[in-house]
Amino acid sequence: MSFVRNAWYVAGWSKDFGTSLRAVEITGQNLVLFRETTGTLRALEDRCPHRLLPLSKGKRIGDTIQCGYHGMTFDGTGQCVRVPGQQNTPQSAYVETFPVEERHGVVWIWMGTPALADPDDIFDLPQFSQPGWHLHHGDALHIRSHYLNVAENLVDPAHVSFVHPTTLGNAASENVPVHVSTSGAVISAWRWIRDAPPIGFFQKFGGFDGNVDRWHYYDLHLPSTAVIDFGSIDTALACSEEDRNRGVRVFALHFVTPVNEHHTIDHWMHLRNTEPGEEAAAQMDGMFRQAFAEDKEILEAVHANEQRPQRRRPIRIAIDKAPTVYRKRIRDLIAAEATEDLGEAVAPSFIQHD
Amino acid sequence: MSFVRNAWYVAGWSKDFGTSLRAVEITGQNLVLFRETTGTLRALEDRCPHRLLPLSKGKRIGDTIQCGYHGMTFDGTGQCVRVPGQQNTPQSAYVETFPVEERHGVVWIWMGTPALADPDDIFDLPQFSQPGWHLHHGDALHIRSHYLNVAENLVDPAHVSFVHPTTLGNAASENVPVHVSTSGAVISAWRWIRDAPPIGFFQKFGGFDGNVDRWHYYDLHLPSTAVIDFGSIDTALACSEEDRNRGVRVFALHFVTPVNEHHTIDHWMHLRNTEPGEEAAAQMDGMFRQAFAEDKEILEAVHANEQRPQRRRPIRIAIDKAPTVYRKRIRDLIAAEATEDLGEAVAPSFIQHD
Amino acid sequence: MSFVRNAWYVAGWSKDFGTSLRAVEITGQNLVLFRETTGTLRALEDRCPHRLLPLSKGKRIGDTIQCGYHGMTFDGTGQCVRVPGQQNTPQSAYVETFPVEERHGVVWIWMGTPALADPDDIFDLPQFSQPGWHLHHGDALHIRSHYLNVAENLVDPAHVSFVHPTTLGNAASENVPVHVSTSGAVISAWRWIRDAPPIGFFQKFGGFDGNVDRWHYYDLHLPSTAVIDFGSIDTALACSEEDRNRGVRVFALHFVTPVNEHHTIDHWMHLRNTEPGEEAAAQMDGMFRQAFAEDKEILEAVHANEQRPQRRRPIRIAIDKAPTVYRKRIRDLIAAEATEDLGEAVAPSFIQHD
Repeated sequence: MSFVRNAWYVAGWSKDFGTSLRAVEITGQNLVLFRETTGTLRALEDRCPHRLLPLSKGKRIGDTIQCGYHGMTFDGTGQCVRVPGQQNTPQSAYVETFPVEERHGVVWIWMGTPALADPDDIFDLPQFSQPGWHLHHGDALHIRSHYLNVAENLVDPAHVSFVHPTTLGNAASENVPVHVSTSGAVISAWRWIRDAPPIGFFQKFGGFDGNVDRWHYYDLHLPSTAVIDFGSIDTALACSEEDRNRGVRVFALHFVTPVNEHHTIDHWMHLRNTEPGEEAAAQMDGMFRQAFAEDKEILEAVHANEQRPQRRRPIRIAIDKAPTVYRKRIRDLIAAEATEDLGEAVAPSFIQHD
Repeated sequence: MSFVRNAWYVAGWSKDFGTSLRAVEITGQNLVLFRETTGTLRALEDRCPHRLLPLSKGKRIGDTIQCGYHGMTFDGTGQCVRVPGQQNTPQSAYVETFPVEERHGVVWIWMGTPALADPDDIFDLPQFSQPGWHLHHGDALHIRSHYLNVAENLVDPAHVSFVHPTTLGNAASENVPVHVSTSGAVISAWRWIRDAPPIGFFQKFGGFDGNVDRWHYYDLHLPSTAVIDFGSIDTALACSEEDRNRGVRVFALHFVTPVNEHHTIDHWMHLRNTEPGEEAAAQMDGMFRQAFAEDKEILEAVHANEQRPQRRRPIRIAIDKAPTVYRKRIRDLIAAEATEDLGEAVAPSFIQHD
Repeated sequence: MSFVRNAWYVAGWSKDFGTSLRAVEITGQNLVLFRETTGTLRALEDRCPHRLLPLSKGKRIGDTIQCGYHGMTFDGTGQCVRVPGQQNTPQSAYVETFPVEERHGVVWIWMGTPALADPDDIFDLPQFSQPGWHLHHGDALHIRSHYLNVAENLVDPAHVSFVHPTTLGNAASENVPVHVSTSGAVISAWRWIRDAPPIGFFQKFGGFDGNVDRWHYYDLHLPSTAVIDFGSIDTALACSEEDRNRGVRVFALHFVTPVNEHHTIDHWMHLRNTEPGEEAAAQMDGMFRQAFAEDKEILEAVHANEQRPQRRRPIRIAIDKAPTVYRKRIRDLIAAEATEDLGEAVAPSFIQHD
């Protein structure tokens, strides 16, 4: 198992979840989500405990879900409130529930022990509520790769020159060293490329003529939320590290959700200190989509090759510092959870066909 | 292994099998069927013992099959009658054969020890040959689900209200208790819904205005033939259980054939004490096809969920009585066969590539 | 493992490989091929040792390959010549290389220990350089079957009458015995069909009216290159075995490349002592393509059946002599290599997701 369970993961945008039943898979667990009439969002195990039909194949009846096979009905707390054909309700008639929270139009689900869920741990950024900052919802990128590949890519400035040479990077940055530090649950990698031509993105949206100072700060919040703070400013303005708001600055947020061992969804959105207008925003999206398609191709090819037999261990190089720290932190978290775990998966063979 | 081997299973309709070679898979065994010039149907192992080419890829030569690779030729008894390039025929040059019988346009194959095959054990119903009863061949429904899921669904009246609310069931029956009994190789579940509005089917084809008494008798003949006797009669006529022929009565026959662990075919046909005319019969078929598509969706989703790791055992509820008895009977039959079995499958690895 | 490693295998036609990067899989090993500016062809392991991205997803930079993920750069000898972001190059930064040779427009790769590669072992035929012989490049036939199935088919004259009754064989040859002999790394099976009507191929391209003597010599060079020498001559000319050049004679060459356990590519070409003209050559190709499609169907069906559990061993018959010798020779070669082998595959699980 390679998932941190005690963590908040993004299930989607708030606008994606209405009164109808919606199936979602996170860390290999199938969930059904629906919004109660009060507006509260609920996340239940998507498996009727009776004959295992996904509840998402059932029907909303008020604020309950009626299973589509024999009508067993569950409320938003997972309790069974009706078993057709009998008066009593067996104690084992329930489905697991998962704490759900919404923040800034994003839906978060706690996949671990419910008692440990603390909404204060949900990712936040002061700029969400500061004037001058504009929120732009992006999209959900589906990637057939392990989530650690996707997440480590977001704390890895070095790939940009090679994977995104026409959009987010250029040759000027190929050899610029990357600084790495960790602070609590955040691993950071950053670099400034000083006095260089603007990359495609800032040529287009920064309105820069001459050389700029460009920064990339990659903050990866464990287990898998990435904040990429990047921007550019006229080199002549001699911008200090603390003074980035003077330039054109973008926070690209990536909420990396492990669907299962082979599938990851990256929900991305932006916070910008500039409001580019509708047409330019669409062009910006287009540029990001191109860059993400470039990432997707690489990450899926890496994943496919990882599934093959390996005769030599991969090598680590200088630029891997942040990804290496990241993977170690994840391994440690998973190991710690494993020692605490009591429950154990039952092999599917116990299904009584045989 | 989860198949009862010593049993007659339905391979298809008689009209499906002519002189050409036809491949069929039952209980994980590939068969080739063809009709000899005398009309006798033959079922052979669909695997040339020489280089394993399916014989169904070969050619009819008179009443023999010539393998499409090197021309080894087998007659309807499975004996090799020609090995091109040599005069003698090795003793091991044969394919297994399987007893075949035809009844009422249905083809049955015995998948177990040939010496145990008794044609008298083949399913029959007196109404096949009684005046006033009309036989209507249905179709073959392919379902990507384990056959026990498909078969137990046919001794489970409780699902009808939820899976087929507009065709075969309605809310009136949701809480009506189900009676269960077993008699020899037949497990029965039944209930009467008295003095209620007719369901869609009988509104359309029964010509009922007011309330009716409606019955559902589900007889599941081991291992997997289901007879669903259902009908309706004007409540005012106070019909007794024994007197069902007075109403509109339909026997829906389902011959459930396990193709393999993940695939099942349900050949269905009807016997009715009413002849609805061609147009109405087609409408009836349409209604059943809609209902079966509803079953198929449920059964395939259940099967898919059963393949996933399970952390809790499924729960059993009151309406499961007949399915639970059924699964236990099947398990007992399989266990009994296993202790008698001498032969054992050879792993494919012995194929001499390595 | 069922591949002979110390052998030259065909990767494709010379014309298929230019300056761009081309991915090829042979004996389960992914390779990237490219032609250096001098024209030399290089074959490298298609896996960056850093994050496992296939190098074929990267970029040619002069005579090197730059990985598409982080820019690690490798020359044609597999040595890493650049690691962006650092000055030194770790010793483990290399990819394996594979000896490559080109002969008569065919690209050969040595998949075993490089020190054992001897270009003199590459298949050759005197007719490649003799006057009066015409080389005709065919195509690459992809077959979803184990390569031993494909190769043994090419030393098996007996299948021709049954698999190719309208093109390469006819009933006249069904019972003509096959002679088998071995000489060094070549296993031969042959037969003459004397004084019989010409097969479709020679009716069309030999211009024969009456009966002909027809020969088929199947030479299988270990591990998997087949030379089928076949031709026809007027029976009245009383041709001796040594005098085949007097007739219409074709060498059909099949270079059988094991892609992996389930996939094989057969690159085929012809050497003929007749130049049929463009139109007739195209018709000839069409006839062979039809015959190869017939082989493909059989070989894929055999392979699929071999993947199933087997309850009885396949039987061997008289015509199997050459295939049986061939499979034994291959097993012996693989066993000999295994005892010499020191390296062992590491299970993919060491990839550090978990």
